Amino acid sequence: MSKEAKYPVNLELFNRTSHNPSYHSLQSSMGDIDLKIIDYCIPVNSYFPTAEMIKHYADNIYEILKYYPDHGEDLSKIVAKVFGYQSENLIMCNGATELVTYLNQHFVKESICVPVPTWGRWTDQPKELGKKVVYYERKEENDYHLNPQDFVDFALKNKVDSVVICNPNNPTGALLSKHEMMEIIDGLSSIGLIIVDEAFIDFSYEDAKDIPSVSDVATQRENLVVVKSLGKNLGLHGVRLGYGIACEKVIQKLYTLTPKWNINGMSEALILDLEKYFQDYEMARKRQVQDRLYFENRLLEVPYLKVFPSITNFIYVKLPEHVDGVQLRNNLILNHGCFIRLCHDKIGSSGQYIRLAVRPKDQTDILINALNEELSQFSLKEVAQR
Amino acid sequence: MSKEAKYPVNLELFNRTSHNPSYHSLQSSMGDIDLKIIDYCIPVNSYFPTAEMIKHYADNIYEILKYYPDHGEDLSKIVAKVFGYQSENLIMCNGATELVTYLNQHFVKESICVPVPTWGRWTDQPKELGKKVVYYERKEENDYHLNPQDFVDFALKNKVDSVVICNPNNPTGALLSKHEMMEIIDGLSSIGLIIVDEAFIDFSYEDAKDIPSVSDVATQRENLVVVKSLGKNLGLHGVRLGYGIACEKVIQKLYTLTPKWNINGMSEALILDLEKYFQDYEMARKRQVQDRLYFENRLLEVPYLKVFPSITNFIYVKLPEHVDGVQLRNNLILNHGCFIRLCHDKIGSSGQYIRLAVRPKDQTDILINALNEELSQFSLKEVAQR
Repeated sequence: MSKEAKYPVNLELFNRTSHNPSYHSLQSSMGDIDLKIIDYCIPVNSYFPTAEMIKHYADNIYEILKYYPDHGEDLSKIVAKVFGYQSENLIMCNGATELVTYLNQHFVKESICVPVPTWGRWTDQPKELGKKVVYYERKEENDYHLNPQDFVDFALKNKVDSVVICNPNNPTGALLSKHEMMEIIDGLSSIGLIIVDEAFIDFSYEDAKDIPSVSDVATQRENLVVVKSLGKNLGLHGVRLGYGIACEKVIQKLYTLTPKWNINGMSEALILDLEKYFQDYEMARKRQVQDRLYFENRLLEVPYLKVFPSITNFIYVKLPEHVDGVQLRNNLILNHGCFIRLCHDKIGSSGQYIRLAVRPKDQTDILINALNEELSQFSLKEVAQR
Repeated sequence: MSKEAKYPVNLELFNRTSHNPSYHSLQSSMGDIDLKIIDYCIPVNSYFPTAEMIKHYADNIYEILKYYPDHGEDLSKIVAKVFGYQSENLIMCNGATELVTYLNQHFVKESICVPVPTWGRWTDQPKELGKKVVYYERKEENDYHLNPQDFVDFALKNKVDSVVICNPNNPTGALLSKHEMMEIIDGLSSIGLIIVDEAFIDFSYEDAKDIPSVSDVATQRENLVVVKSLGKNLGLHGVRLGYGIACEKVIQKLYTLTPKWNINGMSEALILDLEKYFQDYEMARKRQVQDRLYFENRLLEVPYLKVFPSITNFIYVKLPEHVDGVQLRNNLILNHGCFIRLCHDKIGSSGQYIRLAVRPKDQTDILINALNEELSQFSLKEVAQR
């Protein structure tokens, strides 16, 4: 018999669509209950924006939302300056998803090679668009680390016109070094398009010099596009703010595809403040990297779990066979308000794998306690059934 | 000798790009001066959102922006319900511009007939995409009212595959009745695509029954798409929120083109609150219609101006020959903080025409006084030169 749920969310929301329900929909499904769910699904920047920034935007929300923002092209120039690019190499988009959509639609010609498991849009969208998707399996026994030469050989053998690499990989957290990335980029110089999705790369290392981004290479090559997610960096996934880095020719083509005024007023306000708050942002980014170390160490203490090494702000975990992933996810949210991401819908993954977003220490401790408690229930049951 | 400007905006901003500078960029170009420019460029809803709503969003801004919103498709269902459509006939977009972009890219085949003057994206974008744009001239002597049969004949004679009609027309404010619209739609049943841009139609009449929208027809025809701008309706142009109404087949095609998560968190919050605040919205919309009558009457008092009849929340005005449009626009903002839209860059218009957004009575009076003062300067000069 199940005890009464402390967080009575509507579990039906998990079955309604192919994707995870939104935090809002789950939270509001509890009605007036004054308890906040903690989100461990979405890898965030826990320390940005600062309270001062939030207050500033709250005070000015009407002005921010009332007027048309500038064209995306004007705002791109500002972002390029802050992050040290030439403006002709950068295009802002309404979340990285917008850029991903146009790449899948107009740049991938007939076929794309996609290492799995990975982000759903790289596996689903090309297929929805009638393109051939060739999966390359990242191996669990290698901690999902991709072997560059093997991947190059595989892509060439399969004669794809495009490849995409998430670095770090989502959901596994495996990161390729710059040297390894260059091995792939040079090995695939003959193919039409190499997409490198660096949505989570800025949470890999504290020192910006250590971050193995290939965006500097993308400005120099006609077949390389780097996808970045500024919304993730800034800890505000709801603003929809991403950008792409490529050579001028590719950026120009992307501009012909992208709606003007694709950047909303709130995003514009953030962009206009980027320079001013850059030190705060850097400090937040570094704290987030530090939190991963604590999170990883605490997870390793939990019995039964297999924790894969991750170099970003989420960690991929395998559940033991005797634990039902759906039930664990449900129990974690119902009994503890801990909302986790089950990877049952990802090609190359299954309901035995979860992705946990790195959170500050206090929230890490809440999750670890919840996991210990709920996992022990499964163990007891298993023992009882024997 | 010019006196010192009370509102020392950087006029260079008007020359930097082909489009109008943003309100933000003009306002911030004054530095720390504690005076607010009044915007008469952007036709708005002056009474929405309510102060209560703004406070609610300000209080919750972090939560609203922190998490991923739901897919556009999920949010479309809510909007459809509120406005009385079947969900399969409606698609939400990141501002009407997003929908317009995909229509120009993927639905207009080779050629489009565009009555001018009109909104720039209907003249510029098809051309940028290499499509033939055939202009149909709206005649000043008819107050820019379009003759349905003449337009049908023109479009058929020119063998275009697409036409677009802004109803009401931007920037002239001329509105076609539903009967006239049906004459066009039936007359062009043989062509591939009829786009009706109804971005401003909800400010035409107080009684919703009188508003001559053809969205109900669009759900029944395969060659008709209606474009709506919810951001304009809600008075928040910065949120980027539009939608399209069409038959299920067209909507399905649009979904294949549209990025998921194209609706940002702030827009999602507004959508989720639509039903709750619908009465407030309707009251605001009606007050906005009433303001037009006052605005129009006051404008008619100003000597020298030719005021065209408008059935929406902006009014098109012709300046007399002796008045230089650029100088008038500059003087209005420098001396009075009144920011107006000169139509020098619109095909079928010129620097002798301005578009004025309807504002509440007190702000209308400010503009009328400013216009009287500045226009009299031109008259004096002209007299002096004789």
